[in-house]
Amino acid sequence: MTISPLAPEEFPDMPNVPGISISTAHSGMRYENRDDLCLITMEDETRVAGVFTRSLCASAPVDWCKENLQLGYGRALICNAGNANAFTGAKGEQIVEKSAAVLSESLSIPKGHIYLASTGVIGEAFEPIELTRHFDHLIESLEASGTALWKEAAEAITTTDTFPKGSSAKINGTDAVVVGIAKGSGMIAPDMATMLAFIFTDMKISHDDLQKVVEETASSSFNCITVDSDTSTSDSVLVFATGKSQYAWDKNSEAFAAALQLVFKDLAHQIVKDGEGATKFVEIEVTGAETTHAAKNIAMSIANSPLVKTAIAAEDANWGRIIMAVGKSGEKADRDLLRIWIGDELVAENGQQNPSYSEKKATQHLQKDNVKIRADIGLGSCQATVWTCDLTERYIEINAGYRS
Amino acid sequence: MTISPLAPEEFPDMPNVPGISISTAHSGMRYENRDDLCLITMEDETRVAGVFTRSLCASAPVDWCKENLQLGYGRALICNAGNANAFTGAKGEQIVEKSAAVLSESLSIPKGHIYLASTGVIGEAFEPIELTRHFDHLIESLEASGTALWKEAAEAITTTDTFPKGSSAKINGTDAVVVGIAKGSGMIAPDMATMLAFIFTDMKISHDDLQKVVEETASSSFNCITVDSDTSTSDSVLVFATGKSQYAWDKNSEAFAAALQLVFKDLAHQIVKDGEGATKFVEIEVTGAETTHAAKNIAMSIANSPLVKTAIAAEDANWGRIIMAVGKSGEKADRDLLRIWIGDELVAENGQQNPSYSEKKATQHLQKDNVKIRADIGLGSCQATVWTCDLTERYIEINAGYRS
Repeated sequence: MTISPLAPEEFPDMPNVPGISISTAHSGMRYENRDDLCLITMEDETRVAGVFTRSLCASAPVDWCKENLQLGYGRALICNAGNANAFTGAKGEQIVEKSAAVLSESLSIPKGHIYLASTGVIGEAFEPIELTRHFDHLIESLEASGTALWKEAAEAITTTDTFPKGSSAKINGTDAVVVGIAKGSGMIAPDMATMLAFIFTDMKISHDDLQKVVEETASSSFNCITVDSDTSTSDSVLVFATGKSQYAWDKNSEAFAAALQLVFKDLAHQIVKDGEGATKFVEIEVTGAETTHAAKNIAMSIANSPLVKTAIAAEDANWGRIIMAVGKSGEKADRDLLRIWIGDELVAENGQQNPSYSEKKATQHLQKDNVKIRADIGLGSCQATVWTCDLTERYIEINAGYRS
Repeated sequence: MTISPLAPEEFPDMPNVPGISISTAHSGMRYENRDDLCLITMEDETRVAGVFTRSLCASAPVDWCKENLQLGYGRALICNAGNANAFTGAKGEQIVEKSAAVLSESLSIPKGHIYLASTGVIGEAFEPIELTRHFDHLIESLEASGTALWKEAAEAITTTDTFPKGSSAKINGTDAVVVGIAKGSGMIAPDMATMLAFIFTDMKISHDDLQKVVEETASSSFNCITVDSDTSTSDSVLVFATGKSQYAWDKNSEAFAAALQLVFKDLAHQIVKDGEGATKFVEIEVTGAETTHAAKNIAMSIANSPLVKTAIAAEDANWGRIIMAVGKSGEKADRDLLRIWIGDELVAENGQQNPSYSEKKATQHLQKDNVKIRADIGLGSCQATVWTCDLTERYIEINAGYRS
């Protein structure tokens, strides 16, 4: 497997989060020669918040997590890669139920405080024992979190990913931290496609406050990325707050929200940079829309257009395709008010090509790894930014071969 | 250019439509060694109806046609391939205005009875003379329609098409006919992407009746096809009725609607079969939905999913991706009521894989040129069928190279 050309040079240094322990194992269910199971445990009193796929055919683990979230406590997270336990019927529910029961017994914690995530093939049921027989070993191997273990965990949850994804931030004015790992490459679309992200902090915060800030932060990060417009049945973002630091939400809410935003956005960008076959990271900014909703729809229409994405892959300043994508979004637009930029180069305004437009400059911008496209709709003052990657032959190669 | 493996063996025999004359020419604007201009004239009293792209950034010719349609008469149609005259600002309007003025003068018909269509690159204005200097020659060369000329016209309007598209049908119980030509391959999506279709009949019918039957027929044919979910700024379906036969709408409405449906659907299918890089023609039927609108949205969600389309290209019975596409459509669905078929093979029901599912049989079906996928939602009795093609590396190759 070739590593994405957009991958960071190395996995970042990531601190221990007080109250968090990690272990990984090899289940042998799908992958050879790598760990594909990850257990993370949280000390007593850890609060949890989450957002999930909006797919109406969600997986069994997603259903389980959504229900538990009402209790507000998270003490253990078990994640397996290779089989999504989605569309697996009654068997899928058994797998979830049995996994939680075994962990609950072994760790002496309530089943309702246990979280599960699965990623991989859809529609292939398996015996719960294929997971649960590894739990004793996982529990025995638990160690306090730290860079090496965060990296092992980030690697254990990958499927078609070409690099492990991690990010961390200090919460300003405190010693508390936010640390996260994530996986996901293809099937990443609005409202969280095959993407798993697990974030941890030692901040003291209630379940309700945590849920609110997580939803707000996800709406401008994880929910603003797309690789291929497809949406998975398994996406989950889970945030655990151990409360082991002396710093509380009420006095540090802005600093905490800012750190969460940094980690969410960094992980979201890494997911796009690992888009299947991606060679360019693309930021699409839409300004001047009548509503934020319209701005985001137009931005996503551009970001999901196969014709725009193939033009970017070819470093071809084919701005007609951007106009096309604005026009097909279904949102209000006026051909003569619309302005389009590639990088800093204004390519179109007044219903035609900008007279001083330099195709050479636009092409030079498209030759970079990081591409920026901006559309100003000219109708209002609302804005949205989304991130995507280009569409290359490698995407087809990967997805015509992989059973996901 | 390789001809699509799904192309018909040869251009069909197509009769003369009384009252219709055709000529083609080479403008030299973009293509070498082929005609790219087509003039079709209609005798006095010819009624016209049309449906157009819903893009909010429509091309200058589309704006022109929409306005003229209110008059209800069509006497001449001029189409050029290579430049879409879209997003060309005031210059684009001049091109349209000047073309109509020259034809009006030379043919002695009102400007309001003249129809224009352009397809090709977006955003590159040109001088009207580049088109109009060929009009005298086109008018001198006009000849009564017939197979050879229909084929020349169908070839003159192509861009990335790999074969010319034509279809005709007799109107049952009459000597009247419906004849049509079309172009379009990439950028074909719901609500008519870069697709031009021109249809002609000698039936006697009023503008209002014609408009109504054209809209109804387009909604279950041209508006039910997709190649890549992208929508062009130029799509137009124009239907001209010369009234030169003795057969009138009021006594033959069912037979006429049926013949129109045959021609529309045949042309729509040919467009999909020429989808860029297509190797398989795919019919997607959704049954058991609560509304027709929901059925079509779910069908289009499956048809537009890059992951479904790459799996079909690979002849991989990866039905989990079909479930995913149903789930992401946003329409009501219940995992446990959903049933999925590949060909005649029931693959999933009751929220899991059908116990007697044979992957071998599903794979055998996917090895055919014509693939059928069906999803029953289990919530109601509404239905929709849409058509698409698979997604191959060749799509990327074509679109990363072509400036459309």
